[in-house]
Amino acid sequence: MSDPVVPLTLEGAAVLHQMFRIRWDEWRALDAHSRHVALEEAGEWLQIKEGAEGGEQSAAYALLGHKADLLLLHFRRDFTGLLEAEQNVRQARIGRYLELAHSFLSVVELGLYESTRKIHEELAARGLAPGTPEWDAAVEETLDRQRKAMASRLWPEIPESRYICFYPMDRRRGEQKNWYQVPFAERQRMMHEHGLVGRKYAGSVRQIISGAIGLDDWEWGVDLFSDDPLAFKRLIYEMRFDEISAVYGSFGRFFIGIRAPSEKMDALMRGDVRGAIG
Amino acid sequence: MSDPVVPLTLEGAAVLHQMFRIRWDEWRALDAHSRHVALEEAGEWLQIKEGAEGGEQSAAYALLGHKADLLLLHFRRDFTGLLEAEQNVRQARIGRYLELAHSFLSVVELGLYESTRKIHEELAARGLAPGTPEWDAAVEETLDRQRKAMASRLWPEIPESRYICFYPMDRRRGEQKNWYQVPFAERQRMMHEHGLVGRKYAGSVRQIISGAIGLDDWEWGVDLFSDDPLAFKRLIYEMRFDEISAVYGSFGRFFIGIRAPSEKMDALMRGDVRGAIG
Amino acid sequence: MSDPVVPLTLEGAAVLHQMFRIRWDEWRALDAHSRHVALEEAGEWLQIKEGAEGGEQSAAYALLGHKADLLLLHFRRDFTGLLEAEQNVRQARIGRYLELAHSFLSVVELGLYESTRKIHEELAARGLAPGTPEWDAAVEETLDRQRKAMASRLWPEIPESRYICFYPMDRRRGEQKNWYQVPFAERQRMMHEHGLVGRKYAGSVRQIISGAIGLDDWEWGVDLFSDDPLAFKRLIYEMRFDEISAVYGSFGRFFIGIRAPSEKMDALMRGDVRGAIG
Amino acid sequence: MSDPVVPLTLEGAAVLHQMFRIRWDEWRALDAHSRHVALEEAGEWLQIKEGAEGGEQSAAYALLGHKADLLLLHFRRDFTGLLEAEQNVRQARIGRYLELAHSFLSVVELGLYESTRKIHEELAARGLAPGTPEWDAAVEETLDRQRKAMASRLWPEIPESRYICFYPMDRRRGEQKNWYQVPFAERQRMMHEHGLVGRKYAGSVRQIISGAIGLDDWEWGVDLFSDDPLAFKRLIYEMRFDEISAVYGSFGRFFIGIRAPSEKMDALMRGDVRGAIG
Amino acid sequence: MSDPVVPLTLEGAAVLHQMFRIRWDEWRALDAHSRHVALEEAGEWLQIKEGAEGGEQSAAYALLGHKADLLLLHFRRDFTGLLEAEQNVRQARIGRYLELAHSFLSVVELGLYESTRKIHEELAARGLAPGTPEWDAAVEETLDRQRKAMASRLWPEIPESRYICFYPMDRRRGEQKNWYQVPFAERQRMMHEHGLVGRKYAGSVRQIISGAIGLDDWEWGVDLFSDDPLAFKRLIYEMRFDEISAVYGSFGRFFIGIRAPSEKMDALMRGDVRGAIG
Repeated sequence: MSDPVVPLTLEGAAVLHQMFRIRWDEWRALDAHSRHVALEEAGEWLQIKEGAEGGEQSAAYALLGHKADLLLLHFRRDFTGLLEAEQNVRQARIGRYLELAHSFLSVVELGLYESTRKIHEELAARGLAPGTPEWDAAVEETLDRQRKAMASRLWPEIPESRYICFYPMDRRRGEQKNWYQVPFAERQRMMHEHGLVGRKYAGSVRQIISGAIGLDDWEWGVDLFSDDPLAFKRLIYEMRFDEISAVYGSFGRFFIGIRAPSEKMDALMRGDVRGAIG
Repeated sequence: MSDPVVPLTLEGAAVLHQMFRIRWDEWRALDAHSRHVALEEAGEWLQIKEGAEGGEQSAAYALLGHKADLLLLHFRRDFTGLLEAEQNVRQARIGRYLELAHSFLSVVELGLYESTRKIHEELAARGLAPGTPEWDAAVEETLDRQRKAMASRLWPEIPESRYICFYPMDRRRGEQKNWYQVPFAERQRMMHEHGLVGRKYAGSVRQIISGAIGLDDWEWGVDLFSDDPLAFKRLIYEMRFDEISAVYGSFGRFFIGIRAPSEKMDALMRGDVRGAIG
Repeated sequence: MSDPVVPLTLEGAAVLHQMFRIRWDEWRALDAHSRHVALEEAGEWLQIKEGAEGGEQSAAYALLGHKADLLLLHFRRDFTGLLEAEQNVRQARIGRYLELAHSFLSVVELGLYESTRKIHEELAARGLAPGTPEWDAAVEETLDRQRKAMASRLWPEIPESRYICFYPMDRRRGEQKNWYQVPFAERQRMMHEHGLVGRKYAGSVRQIISGAIGLDDWEWGVDLFSDDPLAFKRLIYEMRFDEISAVYGSFGRFFIGIRAPSEKMDALMRGDVRGAIG
Repeated sequence: MSDPVVPLTLEGAAVLHQMFRIRWDEWRALDAHSRHVALEEAGEWLQIKEGAEGGEQSAAYALLGHKADLLLLHFRRDFTGLLEAEQNVRQARIGRYLELAHSFLSVVELGLYESTRKIHEELAARGLAPGTPEWDAAVEETLDRQRKAMASRLWPEIPESRYICFYPMDRRRGEQKNWYQVPFAERQRMMHEHGLVGRKYAGSVRQIISGAIGLDDWEWGVDLFSDDPLAFKRLIYEMRFDEISAVYGSFGRFFIGIRAPSEKMDALMRGDVRGAIG
Repeated sequence: MSDPVVPLTLEGAAVLHQMFRIRWDEWRALDAHSRHVALEEAGEWLQIKEGAEGGEQSAAYALLGHKADLLLLHFRRDFTGLLEAEQNVRQARIGRYLELAHSFLSVVELGLYESTRKIHEELAARGLAPGTPEWDAAVEETLDRQRKAMASRLWPEIPESRYICFYPMDRRRGEQKNWYQVPFAERQRMMHEHGLVGRKYAGSVRQIISGAIGLDDWEWGVDLFSDDPLAFKRLIYEMRFDEISAVYGSFGRFFIGIRAPSEKMDALMRGDVRGAIG
């Protein structure tokens, strides 16, 4: 297989992670009625977004630690939808008590390493070369087929799990170890092995990968969802020994959040943890 | 060809990217009339700059994420023109609601790798050596000719595309992989291959490269313009497998913006996304 | 032993380090009565948490230097308990005078390198392979046994020592020196040698290791407790010559604190050092 | 020549670069009379310093981009003179509208690579060894002679050029490529070649090198002065292919400024660009 | 000599460097009487600390550049003494005009490379092995003897020199060049050569090394004291060519200060440089 082969890739929902610090002093200085009105408004907006279709939802999480207090995770049909979500939050009454500390912009992505390998083998067997009309037609046909088959993963519903773990990552481009210089077959093998570890945790951890090359400062974003936060630690520790992570993984900041459903927004903003996430 | 050969380079318009955070709290605290007057003034200024000639325009973009809210992209005849643009924005009524979070200073640049190769070959064939008067005259003549031929690319109009992607970049100077130590012929080959990938996207992505060596903290700035933001992701992902990007590319922060034309500045500052960019 | 072998690992209490800057100007501007009430409230809360069972305690330390002024160290049964501790501090009267400058989220961890080696040897001797039901059952049985034997280390009481030293760390994943690519037997030997140095200081330094892979920006957190702060320096200097630290250790920021017990919170916030920690 | 040979070095004026952000909001909120008085005072101070002797001048530049708005460049006889310049600015009426964002402390420096080579050859030819009284006397005599010959470069007047380019730099100390381990003769050759490129631009660019080892966070500061800002870009791009820059150069942030003479301080602070620098 | 040998090390005074930004606007807004009272109080405190015994003194320095304005250097018997010094400054009237921008926590340290070599040789000659009671007794006896002989260096008086240069440093732990993997005899030789360069400057520069492993973010702090600030530059430049610095040195930020004695605190805070340090 001639190199470098770029894996076929499908894109779905546009994704924005917003990590806010809450301006607690100002919020608590607000009178009870204004707080109530702001929370009503915020809760209603969130409730609608929680109930939207796959690929159009938003969800809220209380974050642990000093990096930020609140994560809003938005899936939308496109970037205009994300800009609108940003403005909805900013223009809402609660918006002036939220300070945007971090964010991550990406697009749900499925990297079709296995399909890429197959199509290259098949077309080469038929004597076709990349760039020919037949080749391009075959690729397009594969992408269309997979796009339909994978629709629910490309436009996912946000899992209802209690915990979220988000982190951005790159594939390393070191002077000796450079992912983008590794032959396709090697990359495909490493991705496959990596997937086997993920599969072991399939019962306890749901994963959504989004691509951010050309969109944000890291190449990918990883969202893990689970009812057991230790599953994040075990899964990522085990994966770290995979060749692909050990040698080629470069990781950004990790954010751990606890789901705060719309009907409990009120308790969260009162600092009532058991009420907010119980 | 004796090394290190510095590629011949043409320079055109001076460029300034300004990324602002909007002080929403203060802006919204302003009375409606004052907001209206400030927006009228800003819209008029921007409208004039949108309609200026190539190499003298400004354009506004709403940015996604926490890095900044508003990108003003300025092309001018020289640095004094850019300083003036900076002061125009700062002294305008709207200026006190804009906090400059990032910027990038550069000059539109065309690297003439192909011409450099040709001229070196021709002159060497004629037995001339670099630094001789004949050599310098021939180089000057080439530059003049190209400067005329490339005038519209050196003093470009800002494309009307809906989306912009901006990022700064360096060529790596690692201990083993060092772009500035690669023989010219190798560099030229890699640039050529890189261009072929770019050409595949010519229908959907317009690109303006500007040079910043000696002007800002990265060596180049890249502006991509498209009506389909996923084209940024696909183009950059495909290019990342090119030898020149895989091995020698080092990238800064990525900024993604949606064009906000002057007549819709009002909607943008009201948080009306569909109105501002619809 | 087939590689890469992931060491068996036990997890215990959830841990949150909170490093606060005290807003001294605002605090001192507060009237004496309000200060008294706030300190009473804070002191009572802390006293209860100091007296809680192992794995559910909190403790306060005055930090040296500019990084922060106050460290609150929380151990809890789970992450919800930690979020509650965060909210308790934030919602308390004293909370508005505390600015969260840093934090670290982790889980008490025991890495069972020795047990991992033994179980691999035994099971291999019995002809069993990893992933078989017998293998998994044997692993589960070992983990259960160790979890009981190690309960007091997994759910530790916070030592009463006068000084604390906290720092986060990674195992290096360099292009040549990569911990996650080292064969298990080598890793186990290095961990063992590392432990021998630690044991020399067992009389003067207590150590609690917590894991943060997938939870925070470093892989582990290290808490050392001692009545002699020079013991931290000697222990870590000696360890730095260990192969595991010299070659594979990567360290974050170091925080040094002096225990500030609940009954002396009052003196601490008055700036009375001898009264607060004497 | 025995290694490592430290090149003989001459030091002249003490140099301080101060990069200020202007507090525009507060400045514009000031009444016209107070602004006038503050500008009179600042203009007079600057006028005196512009007219001082070489090695004792100050000059002002309007900076482009978000890093800072105003560069004050001070040359003085010693560090006490620089501290005084700092305090002059801070205590002036205009001082409270200037926020110090960056700075760089250094001493004008001439590295005598060529003289070092010669003296080593001569003295070795006479059979003398480094550290002997004869050797030290000969070195001292050379330094004295050069100090007189180079006086105007050691205590330079600030060029009147319209543009300034300032950046700090280090020589690389990598694991394989380490400037401080390169034999003296190699270093001297590379410095010599580097100088040849500089000489090509002698007509359009003036350069002042200052040393900051032991004084600030980078080893050297480079100030370039020109009436054509593109000359900075061309000079530095061409030099980047020199072995010394390509392999051993490590560069900090770049600052580009436009000279703002004292009599036009008023226009600059009104945001009147053409008036201030025209 | 078996490796890795940890050099014997003596510890003395606890050291805290505090780098403050002065809140000039607020300070100048204060009425003259309150300023006077605050300065009297600060001056008296500092005078007492300047006159304390070796190992218990404090001193003040005016810093150059934007990193900070004022350095307070504290030597104390222990960390509680340092925490008290911190609180003394913070609780003083002047404290609210001082913003702590940087700090460094360490302990005066003497690394006994030469004694370590001797004792290893002697004990090995007597057939003793490390870790035996005889060996430990001999080491303890050496440390005791040296501790007495070196007392004035372990509990130093702060030199009265006009200038201070402070910087933190690490020994490199690179993938190829790793100080902590170098055989002891090599390390001892490099330390010895390094000391010879230092000795050349003994007449003009006094040096105090403090250790910070386990205490702060760098391994060591270096304080240089001189009446000629160019001596800092010359000493450090010459040392940078030493193998130990060239290959294994990694340096933090450099701070340059001018001594501001207690009786001139008043002039310093008025911005009267000649009065404060003349």
